Amino acid sequence: MDRLTIIKVGGKVVEDSVSLNTLLDQFIRISGYKILVHGGGQTATEIAARLGVESQMVNGRRITGESMLEVVTMVYGGLVNKKIVAQLQAKGCNAIGISGADLNLISARKRPVQDIDYGFVGDVSDVNSRELRILINENVVPVIAPLTHDGKGQLLNTNADTIAAELASEMSSFYSVYLFYCFEKKGVLLDPSNDNSMLFELNAAEFQQYQNEKIISAGMIPKLENGFRAKRKGVKEVLITNHENVITGKGTRLV
Amino acid sequence: MDRLTIIKVGGKVVEDSVSLNTLLDQFIRISGYKILVHGGGQTATEIAARLGVESQMVNGRRITGESMLEVVTMVYGGLVNKKIVAQLQAKGCNAIGISGADLNLISARKRPVQDIDYGFVGDVSDVNSRELRILINENVVPVIAPLTHDGKGQLLNTNADTIAAELASEMSSFYSVYLFYCFEKKGVLLDPSNDNSMLFELNAAEFQQYQNEKIISAGMIPKLENGFRAKRKGVKEVLITNHENVITGKGTRLV
Repeated sequence: MDRLTIIKVGGKVVEDSVSLNTLLDQFIRISGYKILVHGGGQTATEIAARLGVESQMVNGRRITGESMLEVVTMVYGGLVNKKIVAQLQAKGCNAIGISGADLNLISARKRPVQDIDYGFVGDVSDVNSRELRILINENVVPVIAPLTHDGKGQLLNTNADTIAAELASEMSSFYSVYLFYCFEKKGVLLDPSNDNSMLFELNAAEFQQYQNEKIISAGMIPKLENGFRAKRKGVKEVLITNHENVITGKGTRLV
Repeated sequence: MDRLTIIKVGGKVVEDSVSLNTLLDQFIRISGYKILVHGGGQTATEIAARLGVESQMVNGRRITGESMLEVVTMVYGGLVNKKIVAQLQAKGCNAIGISGADLNLISARKRPVQDIDYGFVGDVSDVNSRELRILINENVVPVIAPLTHDGKGQLLNTNADTIAAELASEMSSFYSVYLFYCFEKKGVLLDPSNDNSMLFELNAAEFQQYQNEKIISAGMIPKLENGFRAKRKGVKEVLITNHENVITGKGTRLV
């Protein structure tokens, strides 16, 4: 099967023009087919504040009321997505920026209200990659904003790490998929303040143990849960790395 | 050649959810291949105001400074575009929302500063429809936001009427193209307050005369200039109509 690399870029990398440019320079050098999935949470928080919309996070997830949904639709689907597309085009990479609503790519269900009402947050229910694969096979490079839809006209806010994992899982039926989670840290660190504490490999049992010991916590947990799920679903390699090591492949490899 | 209908929707129709829904219900009933090009200027003005960005218009064109470019990128590329896509998907129409930067579809040059500095406004220099045609032939329905790029990483704000005309002209090499400009009026009215003054047909000489007599003015002029240019470049039919008459084809026909 042909190789497909899916890069998820988030955290500070997507918000800082220098880091983003470094990442995009690495991205265009990846051989074979590729997809970029991006976040943009910090910009969403800033724009929301300027619009007088309050940002509320629970367990690192954004509560998405109607006004916040408008903000993330504008910021993820418009501002961040189109800036990346224009920059990739300038680098000679034929990018197309879309969301999970486009091409009916990613359907989701509005998260049921239990203890917390997350609002217009979507849990992925289905990935339909037919038209995306036609584009990829034409050497078009999809740039995907973390929005989904419910198929009834409602856009939903969906975590970009999850979108990358779900896409990677779906695509592994058609390609040999490499999934890289790129952010500002070198990889999974046992001590967040020390780059030398990076794990070169991590397996599911160790991940469980580190979680129990509260050594791995916060935003890293959903990323790793998504990564291990993608591995189980046939993704060839999952790497947690930073924007400078996409080509070298240094980082934490899930095994 | 296969029939391709390009609908440009703007003005109040795109801002009002009831009118927009009426238009989309008509749009999905169009047989053959189709493309939707949208505006969103009123929403951009509203969001800009909420963000403290001043809107300045000259001859009906928006002065687009750096902050305003961010606003239109968010509003056209994100908010308006993705809402329309989600609604079309709900109606069973496999829409994909893109801008002129995506797929390198529409390249433009930043308008040179003469009497007026329009800022990041782009005049179309090239339309590259290769990948768009692949999508259309797969029965995907493109929904196009009025943004272009300069090929060097800069997004530009480009009039949606112009984008519709340029796309229609380009596509007329490959399809039999019908271009409909849809807005809140029934067509070209000799008296804007009287629907019964609608012209059923308009030719270039009459248009010139009505302009000289200042009977046709304001926002209608660029729309008609674009329409006549598209006709000269091989577009089969250009119709100025409203959101209720897409299927009946009632309106002002350029001849």
